[in-house]
Amino acid sequence: MEVFAKSLEKLIREFTKMPSVGPKSAQRLAFHFVRQSREEAENLCRALMEMKDKIKECSRCHNLAEEELCLICASPSRKPETLCVVSDFRDLAAIERTGRYRGVYHVLGGLISPMDGIGPEDLHIASIAGRIEKEGIEEVIFATSPTINGETTALYIMRLIQGLDVRMTRIAYGIPVGGNLEYADDMTLSRAIEGRQQLGPVKD
Amino acid sequence: MEVFAKSLEKLIREFTKMPSVGPKSAQRLAFHFVRQSREEAENLCRALMEMKDKIKECSRCHNLAEEELCLICASPSRKPETLCVVSDFRDLAAIERTGRYRGVYHVLGGLISPMDGIGPEDLHIASIAGRIEKEGIEEVIFATSPTINGETTALYIMRLIQGLDVRMTRIAYGIPVGGNLEYADDMTLSRAIEGRQQLGPVKD
Repeated sequence: MEVFAKSLEKLIREFTKMPSVGPKSAQRLAFHFVRQSREEAENLCRALMEMKDKIKECSRCHNLAEEELCLICASPSRKPETLCVVSDFRDLAAIERTGRYRGVYHVLGGLISPMDGIGPEDLHIASIAGRIEKEGIEEVIFATSPTINGETTALYIMRLIQGLDVRMTRIAYGIPVGGNLEYADDMTLSRAIEGRQQLGPVKD
Repeated sequence: MEVFAKSLEKLIREFTKMPSVGPKSAQRLAFHFVRQSREEAENLCRALMEMKDKIKECSRCHNLAEEELCLICASPSRKPETLCVVSDFRDLAAIERTGRYRGVYHVLGGLISPMDGIGPEDLHIASIAGRIEKEGIEEVIFATSPTINGETTALYIMRLIQGLDVRMTRIAYGIPVGGNLEYADDMTLSRAIEGRQQLGPVKD
């Protein structure tokens, strides 16, 4: 038997479609809006539909944007000679959250994945070489995930641009900060040892 | 510096207002709708506004309803002679999830709380006596939380209806199923001992 009124059940079903929202959280969200004013509900809907209407792709780096260029490409305070290659805008957001990167990005829109029938031509790969030459890029940082698809994609792009006068780097793989060596998997530990870094001399 | 386009930041802020949604989850939800079709976003908005337009209170038990009576009060398969008193519709939902209760409800709309200035007159308490007489109720189950406000409210109602010919019961307090005796707090353990139940004889 359905316990809730029909419109409430329907709303709960809609919330269940959202990521990491199970039946119980969906119920809690629906109950939240039962108690909120009509205006609060309208605010959410307005924000959602406005986002759907306005958001498009940055014509340069394929990040999310409302204008021709995204906020990062349009910003005068970013260093345009460093280019960070990421799989999608969520990875870009993760890097931005650190606040440590001041260069610009190139968002591929996915990774090469033969299993899913995704080839280089389905991604924003062809335009990278042109950007390097036109924008005077000096360093390309590969920040794809250390998975088979991530490494395949990075390798593919590396081969494509290796004739150009540009330094290529990769973000470091290793033990996560706060992580326990004992519980690290073999691959991560191997990468951590391979990628070991010079220390000291210790200064007083 | 704001990283995301304005409309996206605004949507993230709206999601952050929802319960148990922190900044990171809000971002994930917003990103979800970036990738969804416009139609999917519209479906959510339509369900949300429809709920706000349709949902009102059941005139009998004050549960959420779309019609004069809620689905439970209107159902012929519920036993109308057992009445379960709960604080709000979320507690009702929790009991319904168990699937073990077949009676009807009375939703108080909160608990007596002198600290917050909430008295009996602010809640749906006065109508309980009338329901007991008119609907031929034989048992009133108190299912308010074992907190000071919950117990105060139950006690208040008990005094109010004790002259009526009705059995009064309270849901059992005790060790949660799967809980560990060692970690139970003193109050819970005291209640569990007080509320101990007769066992056996074991049948073959």
